[in-house]
Amino acid sequence: MASSTSTPVPTRRSVTVLAGGVGGGRFARGVRHLARQQDLDVTVVVNTGDDLWLTGLRVCPDLDSVMYALADANDTERGWGRAGESERVSAELTAYGVGWPWFTLGDLDLGTHIARTAMLRDGDDLTRATARLAARWALDVTLLPVTDDEVPTLVDVDRPDGTRDRIHFEEWWVRHRAAIPTHGFVQQGVERASVSAAAAAAIRGADVVLLAPSNPVVSIGTMLGVPGVREALAAARGPVVGVAPVIGGRPVRGMADVCCAVVGVEATAAGIARHYGARRDGGLLDAWLVDEVDADSAAELQRDGLRTRAVPLWMTDDDATADMARAALALGLEARGA
Amino acid sequence: MASSTSTPVPTRRSVTVLAGGVGGGRFARGVRHLARQQDLDVTVVVNTGDDLWLTGLRVCPDLDSVMYALADANDTERGWGRAGESERVSAELTAYGVGWPWFTLGDLDLGTHIARTAMLRDGDDLTRATARLAARWALDVTLLPVTDDEVPTLVDVDRPDGTRDRIHFEEWWVRHRAAIPTHGFVQQGVERASVSAAAAAAIRGADVVLLAPSNPVVSIGTMLGVPGVREALAAARGPVVGVAPVIGGRPVRGMADVCCAVVGVEATAAGIARHYGARRDGGLLDAWLVDEVDADSAAELQRDGLRTRAVPLWMTDDDATADMARAALALGLEARGA
Repeated sequence: MASSTSTPVPTRRSVTVLAGGVGGGRFARGVRHLARQQDLDVTVVVNTGDDLWLTGLRVCPDLDSVMYALADANDTERGWGRAGESERVSAELTAYGVGWPWFTLGDLDLGTHIARTAMLRDGDDLTRATARLAARWALDVTLLPVTDDEVPTLVDVDRPDGTRDRIHFEEWWVRHRAAIPTHGFVQQGVERASVSAAAAAAIRGADVVLLAPSNPVVSIGTMLGVPGVREALAAARGPVVGVAPVIGGRPVRGMADVCCAVVGVEATAAGIARHYGARRDGGLLDAWLVDEVDADSAAELQRDGLRTRAVPLWMTDDDATADMARAALALGLEARGA
Repeated sequence: MASSTSTPVPTRRSVTVLAGGVGGGRFARGVRHLARQQDLDVTVVVNTGDDLWLTGLRVCPDLDSVMYALADANDTERGWGRAGESERVSAELTAYGVGWPWFTLGDLDLGTHIARTAMLRDGDDLTRATARLAARWALDVTLLPVTDDEVPTLVDVDRPDGTRDRIHFEEWWVRHRAAIPTHGFVQQGVERASVSAAAAAAIRGADVVLLAPSNPVVSIGTMLGVPGVREALAAARGPVVGVAPVIGGRPVRGMADVCCAVVGVEATAAGIARHYGARRDGGLLDAWLVDEVDADSAAELQRDGLRTRAVPLWMTDDDATADMARAALALGLEARGA
């Protein structure tokens, strides 16, 4: 029975964030901080290119970094992993000659890997396993892997003797600190992969989609490489707003400049915006947020037809990051609505 | 070129022990202690009926108990697991709602399970994985699983509501302390299993085979249930000597009396000897060692045709246990040689 006096129930606005690991986690915290003030639904779609099988366990560095940050369980001093971490199990694995001695698995972190692996081996897909892990923490955010398929990022490098090698991204990043001759990135098996249904729906249905200030090549870039992600962004109901991951030509964190150089992208706020592209030119972006020091770039991009704004982009705390998110949301709604 | 004055190289004598977990480990230490005095090769063939997959990891309680005991890495106060153990990972698994909260996996112990699981998933059989794990510790003993096949011991029990249930042995043993109505033991998949080639060879080729004072039903008994083990014992080059796991009608450790009751075996030194049987009656034993308090049983069994001896059987330390092993070896060589 329809009531003749029914009033429409106001729906909560939704924000979907595409994010990498540690920086993505910090940004997601800011978006959640804003969401709690503005009553928004937040979904974070996370890069899985760094994921790997290590000593029989499924390790998902970016999903875990974002989950731990949102759970207030991350080590903010060290900058990665769990707070209060220890490495007793890792020492055992090393004593048995198993695993990568340069890739430390903390005891608390291993709890996550073991639990996830048990779920996957019992038949859960990564989306379901991620939801079950996240349920422990009451994140107030929906956490989604970009894909349920295994699409490891491999890196083509030179060995010390000059011959070519293809190694896992984590070996390049953690063991070699990205400081060896590097020729390119390969997403192994990407041609058989697809965006997860949940991630695609979250991108298409959001009122605003934000690209976190994550690495444009090996975080956001690998997500864009997964079949269906670009299509979902192109079909998104809301505007797509990117947040520059470089400030004054330097990465906010990580090694975005090194990764950009490998693929021939200029590691500046303007260069990365052009790499993503403006929607009206067939690219992804409806709008682009840069730091105040890059105001000149913003003006230049705006003349080229991309809506931009320059605001402070240092994610010093949740308040500062929420201000960034607020500016990004406003800019996106202007870009679509105006 | 054969030398005309060559003298035969004296070959080292070999002892193979069939053993369960904690008690088996203690006995194996004594045999090794003797072996270092007498220059013997020691192989310990270990029960795998308690093995299980838990949160995606392959846990082998008896193999690990024996390995830790031989490695001087066992917790002698608590009586099981690793010395200096902690449970940080287990607490995480519980927080994620994964695993058996009543089955604690210590952090150091988990290192073993993770390493073993990685080896198995990479294609090693359990024999090879066990050798790789043992190599870390320099045990001075060859450690072998009785079989590479998965033959979990299941237990038929009554639920509180009186209906039947079939649970894993570890659930019965650890969670229920064997204190629920129990109808029998089942070796799941045993009809498709077989003794490992290495274990069969170690049994057949040994100068003496010792049955450790382990549980005659769920440790030694499950090993005897694996196709090929009884055949190897029957064809053994050396004598088979059993060491009674009960002293004056009480188990040396564990719950041998409960397990014996389930299968209708009298839990006495004489009852268990008759359960194994004398070789001349189609059984396994060439000889049987009992404690001094069971000297009457020894005399009775001897009258029935089984060579027996009564010596102190409390494994209070390595010296006392080595004395037991020395008596068992001497008795076995008498039984065959004399």
